[in-house]
Amino acid sequence: MNAIEAVVVEKAKRAKEAARRLAYLPTTVKDAGLLAMADALEAQMAEILAANARDLEAGRLKGLSGALMDRLMLNEKRVKEMAQGLRDVVKLPDPVGEVVAMWRRPNGLEVGQMRVPLGVIGMIYEARPNVTVDAAGLCLKAGNAVVLRGGSEAINSNSAITRIIATAAYRAGIPEGAIEFIDRTEREAAQVLMRLNGYIDVLIPRGGAGLIQTVVKTATVPVIETGVGNCHVYVDEFADLSKAEPIIINAKCQRPGVCNAMETLLVHEAVAPAFLPAIAQRLKERGVEIRGCPTTLKFVPWAKPATEDDWHAEFLDLILAVRVVRSLDEALDHIYRYGTKHSEAIVTENYTNARRFLKEVDAAAVYVNASTRFTDGGQFGFGAEIGISTQKLHARGPMGLKELTTVKYIIFGEGQVRE
Amino acid sequence: MNAIEAVVVEKAKRAKEAARRLAYLPTTVKDAGLLAMADALEAQMAEILAANARDLEAGRLKGLSGALMDRLMLNEKRVKEMAQGLRDVVKLPDPVGEVVAMWRRPNGLEVGQMRVPLGVIGMIYEARPNVTVDAAGLCLKAGNAVVLRGGSEAINSNSAITRIIATAAYRAGIPEGAIEFIDRTEREAAQVLMRLNGYIDVLIPRGGAGLIQTVVKTATVPVIETGVGNCHVYVDEFADLSKAEPIIINAKCQRPGVCNAMETLLVHEAVAPAFLPAIAQRLKERGVEIRGCPTTLKFVPWAKPATEDDWHAEFLDLILAVRVVRSLDEALDHIYRYGTKHSEAIVTENYTNARRFLKEVDAAAVYVNASTRFTDGGQFGFGAEIGISTQKLHARGPMGLKELTTVKYIIFGEGQVRE
Repeated sequence: MNAIEAVVVEKAKRAKEAARRLAYLPTTVKDAGLLAMADALEAQMAEILAANARDLEAGRLKGLSGALMDRLMLNEKRVKEMAQGLRDVVKLPDPVGEVVAMWRRPNGLEVGQMRVPLGVIGMIYEARPNVTVDAAGLCLKAGNAVVLRGGSEAINSNSAITRIIATAAYRAGIPEGAIEFIDRTEREAAQVLMRLNGYIDVLIPRGGAGLIQTVVKTATVPVIETGVGNCHVYVDEFADLSKAEPIIINAKCQRPGVCNAMETLLVHEAVAPAFLPAIAQRLKERGVEIRGCPTTLKFVPWAKPATEDDWHAEFLDLILAVRVVRSLDEALDHIYRYGTKHSEAIVTENYTNARRFLKEVDAAAVYVNASTRFTDGGQFGFGAEIGISTQKLHARGPMGLKELTTVKYIIFGEGQVRE
Repeated sequence: MNAIEAVVVEKAKRAKEAARRLAYLPTTVKDAGLLAMADALEAQMAEILAANARDLEAGRLKGLSGALMDRLMLNEKRVKEMAQGLRDVVKLPDPVGEVVAMWRRPNGLEVGQMRVPLGVIGMIYEARPNVTVDAAGLCLKAGNAVVLRGGSEAINSNSAITRIIATAAYRAGIPEGAIEFIDRTEREAAQVLMRLNGYIDVLIPRGGAGLIQTVVKTATVPVIETGVGNCHVYVDEFADLSKAEPIIINAKCQRPGVCNAMETLLVHEAVAPAFLPAIAQRLKERGVEIRGCPTTLKFVPWAKPATEDDWHAEFLDLILAVRVVRSLDEALDHIYRYGTKHSEAIVTENYTNARRFLKEVDAAAVYVNASTRFTDGGQFGFGAEIGISTQKLHARGPMGLKELTTVKYIIFGEGQVRE
């Protein structure tokens, strides 16, 4: 075992030991830990901002883009928001111990399913230091230990933050090892973590498509895939166009850089002549570049022609691909072919078309007459979210505290044996 | 792409196409398919037995063990049981389409979770040809396509069976490609399957520890790990020994070769003098070899001394490791250290000890006063099972039809947009 491997294994071991006790720690103790973490972030603000300044300076030297520098940057307001985030988690109900179901078998055995923590969660993520605090808080509330591996750009910020919150949590009665941070930036450290079966129960990568693909391809530990969203809005021939317009503007423009933003608009040919020129104009006013199919170009002559790549693209920007389709079936085929199974919406007043879209589209979230931007733990009412799963195992869509747990069967007998 | 890869990809593609239609196929059509498959197995019995005879002949030449030959062997009775298994699946409720929960948000959006199929399931399994039929039936009922990859010993039997059931299903209205069988026995075929992200949604390996470890280490497709069980029964100082005896005999002897059989018995020192000699005698009468800790050897002088390996062992045989412990804590530590998180039982009349065992033991199934042998889909009331998950993601413990599904969020709006 080399030095990097030794560091990662040692941290994972400590997390695993902590997880055993965390699993049945009373909610009151976990909440006291969260509040202590929040207070410590504010009390040690200067230390965090100093560490962040070192990251920002290194980022400037490396020539990081303005967007990346902004994501990396902490100030008093942002640190206070991180602390408030932890206090908000205190208010959420503890998912651990809930008996999801219990039934009696003919032989008198009572069989139940109880919600329990996953154990040790490995988080591999990119630049934003607030993910460090969010993840640590949510994992702790759900009774999990967490091993954090942030991006190298934020190494000083993340080191300071985790030292501060882990110490505060420990002093408040949380087992040592509950929050571990890997302070080695070598790629090998992440690779070791991804293959630590027996120590890490689940890996949650958060970041760009490249990071997530690397984790999926490298990990032997089970992974919850998050992220990529090539989302569509389909304006049906029976759409109420007065609903379609605000939904489209919202889905594309309210926050274009996130995974639940719309990337392709599909419009039924029956409404295209009336609707496309108008909506294109509204989008143009908001700075949206349109890349259209040949039919779209007839109605929106100033649009660029769309390429095959555009139908596949997650632009994460003020760019929209637009295609005119001849039927609901053609829309469903397009979504099947190009979609990433994240969030898909139909705008229609037709009962049968709405039902077909709901049934036939295979995605984490399928909408009728609402913006795809609602795919979010907060918007769904979960109070918090650790990511949006785009895989089908375990969790699909926004993941809240419940998705950070598993279940175990509990069986009560009075001496039963199997015949 | 070489020839083997081409074969596997082609089959997975067909399965993926079938899965799209299977996802919303009416239950009546799926049930008609299952009944047609059952009828075809019986009608084409001669063809199946002839294919099986070729596998048995090859097995004899290869020198397969008696146990393996028995698992491989089909006869009229076994084929009829396979057909009956399919008819039993018809009687189970269809899990697809169930709305698990639905709630209204303050903005009027209605958010629900609907059960939907996983998509394409890859099954990699060993000798027994009945797994072919079981898996195909359960996957179909839950709306999934399945790509089957059985062991090379059963290649002729599995080829004949899948050809017969897939044809029967297709004639009954099931989409072509719903049941695909990989008839290449090269190791590479399995490896290609394990890495077909984008085609295969979930892999379920069934077989020995070696197979499962290979899949976990090789796969990039999400895996549901099944299987290994180093299960314990702990006889507490407050045990009702008249309950302990039948539970222990049952857990060890009723079917020693399965994953939910007991492998290690833990006995509190306070009851060891009275209990150990008696239970050891009963076990000996049933042919059980005992490997004990030094204290056990005092009470059972004829037992063999246990080695460190014995505490780790999944014997799957009439062998039992026995350890005397000084406390519940010592029992919990032993289980934490050596257990495989499958099935663990305490025998006690003490309320607090029972509660501590239930809370503190991390396993798929935790029992009070009942045999570990109940960890089984049929025994839990699921009607059927596709395996027993020993991982924490998605499914834990016996997996029935419900575990072969995922959920999607369905959202009903009237034009809502995000603020």
